[in-house]
Amino acid sequence: MQISPPVLRYVGLAKHVLRASRHYSTRFGYAHSRCLVFSNFGQPEKVLKLHSYSVPPPYDDIINVKFIASPINPADINQLEGVYPEKPEFTLELGTGDKSAVPGNEGLVEIVSCGSKVNPSIRPGQWAIMSGPNFGTWRTYAQAREANLILIPDKEGLSPIQAATVSVNPSTAYRMLKDFAGLEPGDYFVQNAANSGVGRSAIQIGRLWGLKSINIIRDRPGIEKLKEELRTIGGTEVITEAEAKDRRTMARITGGQPVRLALNCVGGESATNLARILGYNGHLVTYGAMSKLPFSVPASALIFKNIHCHGFWISAWSKENEATKSQMIRDILDWIRDGKFQDVPYEVTKWSEDTGLETLMEPIKRGISEYSGRKGIFLMEDD
Amino acid sequence: MQISPPVLRYVGLAKHVLRASRHYSTRFGYAHSRCLVFSNFGQPEKVLKLHSYSVPPPYDDIINVKFIASPINPADINQLEGVYPEKPEFTLELGTGDKSAVPGNEGLVEIVSCGSKVNPSIRPGQWAIMSGPNFGTWRTYAQAREANLILIPDKEGLSPIQAATVSVNPSTAYRMLKDFAGLEPGDYFVQNAANSGVGRSAIQIGRLWGLKSINIIRDRPGIEKLKEELRTIGGTEVITEAEAKDRRTMARITGGQPVRLALNCVGGESATNLARILGYNGHLVTYGAMSKLPFSVPASALIFKNIHCHGFWISAWSKENEATKSQMIRDILDWIRDGKFQDVPYEVTKWSEDTGLETLMEPIKRGISEYSGRKGIFLMEDD
Repeated sequence: MQISPPVLRYVGLAKHVLRASRHYSTRFGYAHSRCLVFSNFGQPEKVLKLHSYSVPPPYDDIINVKFIASPINPADINQLEGVYPEKPEFTLELGTGDKSAVPGNEGLVEIVSCGSKVNPSIRPGQWAIMSGPNFGTWRTYAQAREANLILIPDKEGLSPIQAATVSVNPSTAYRMLKDFAGLEPGDYFVQNAANSGVGRSAIQIGRLWGLKSINIIRDRPGIEKLKEELRTIGGTEVITEAEAKDRRTMARITGGQPVRLALNCVGGESATNLARILGYNGHLVTYGAMSKLPFSVPASALIFKNIHCHGFWISAWSKENEATKSQMIRDILDWIRDGKFQDVPYEVTKWSEDTGLETLMEPIKRGISEYSGRKGIFLMEDD
Repeated sequence: MQISPPVLRYVGLAKHVLRASRHYSTRFGYAHSRCLVFSNFGQPEKVLKLHSYSVPPPYDDIINVKFIASPINPADINQLEGVYPEKPEFTLELGTGDKSAVPGNEGLVEIVSCGSKVNPSIRPGQWAIMSGPNFGTWRTYAQAREANLILIPDKEGLSPIQAATVSVNPSTAYRMLKDFAGLEPGDYFVQNAANSGVGRSAIQIGRLWGLKSINIIRDRPGIEKLKEELRTIGGTEVITEAEAKDRRTMARITGGQPVRLALNCVGGESATNLARILGYNGHLVTYGAMSKLPFSVPASALIFKNIHCHGFWISAWSKENEATKSQMIRDILDWIRDGKFQDVPYEVTKWSEDTGLETLMEPIKRGISEYSGRKGIFLMEDD
């Protein structure tokens, strides 16, 4: 969301002027924001442009914010490609020649200044994350309203990356473990794509809640090291897709204890196998389809094993559960502060005043290959 | 269940003796029961035999019952074939040379006589149906306990076929319409196999509850007559599988109102299409797989449309919901008495003292082709 600001474009201004204006000008109170924009859906390399615009001082209930860190999630890329059901609104508000939107759904901001009618508990220097999708987080400055933000009550003990990445991956894992199968300590869950951001979050939240996890990963070079790493963060068992298809593997692991929840981010045969692994009354929750293949559910698993299949989409959930979301974010941030929840590995792309389009494109291109496991994040740098 | 009776076999007795003994002998109080039995799973034609045994007078909490009507359901045939997860216990109780069991799960009985410790509200002449699966209903006389029976409080206004067929098809339709999607009057549901026993029950129960039904049937000769018939019993719309795949058909029917529940007894493409027809937050309930094909669920339907897929199995439900089941049976029987619920077409096979194996096999063979739509029922005849 961008609240129609008076538009000033800095095209043609000398670089030292741009630099000076990145912070709030004492004279006019305008900030200079740089952002990625797109005006048509398509391949990110073809549709993304770098754009500059000015952010005026806030008034009334407007809050001016500075972005600190903005992740690049698969959903952001799907949204650029136009294959995501939730589409941003293209507008002329940013002063682009064509109607455009800023991509990016997740991000961490610092409050810079507030309009006269903003809730006085919101103060400059505080951190906040986006309360919902479609804000457009791949930029350096923006204007928001209170409803767009979830304030982080205490930023002490948090790194920018930890705070910026809390609302998609750890939140997705948290809800899927909590909302579908009524798991109790000692219960098993199984997941594919266990090395993904959500997968690693589920391992750790599972451990914190006393759950036992069976973590399925694709075979790859150096797999023993990865298995050890996922066990170290709390995975009860880490096995390959091939091992997961062998009934003896499951019998050895669980000793016949039923698996009550399966988390599926792959689809195809891998998902069908999760349905087979699940016990009576089990729940299979799909949150992604990395293989791009649909999956078959045998009628017998539905009828005689009483398996239930669901989907989970954090964007839709967030819209309907604002208060619960704030509480969940606080829980996860507390775990991080207490050293109980480790970061998912992120690859940082620094975004400073003179960072060019080519550099900003690198993590996006990497993100198109969703299997890479190396998530990107923009880290905005003060000059 | 068969409570170990003293076994008398009538092999070699003259036919007039058998006839005379079919009713309770005044002298010894023994009844002569004829039954189908099987000792191995396999093709019904190969494994079924006709067998006779004697049923002694009841004692203690034993209730002697006479079968009036016993349907032949697809599940009974799958059970004979050994492809059903619930298997009967093979015993020597009936005096067969090999351990054997009586097939048939659904049936209507008349109370004949009661042991001294039977609840005095149970009296000769009353009707009852089986409370759960695996009783073995393809026979003429048996012994039971109170827990095996759901008494029909008032048989006035009911035909034997109506009472005998209430616990599988109408009950399955009733629960699926009630337990999954929280439907309210005016809501749409969609079903394939709409001409099946469950399908016709769902149409009628849907009408009684104010629901609007979209009923999908396979194209066939004389389809207009069948469409008219299903509309007459309450189907809001009746369409072919091909029509159901055309998005314009659905838009025309619902005018954009979301379809909240889908009932699937077919599988394969037909089921995947039901997932497409469902609206946001819809539930897809599978209770059969006539096509014998599993079905694919696109991840996008699960994640972005928040579709939930379940299975329903009346046998498992009945075991866990005895009290609720009795209330449901009373509801359905009341509708039948009030003329609000029509029989599903059944083809009657009369079973009298001298009916041979070949005659009894006919409806079973017909039932193997599950698509036939001509359900069979054994109607036991007094001589």
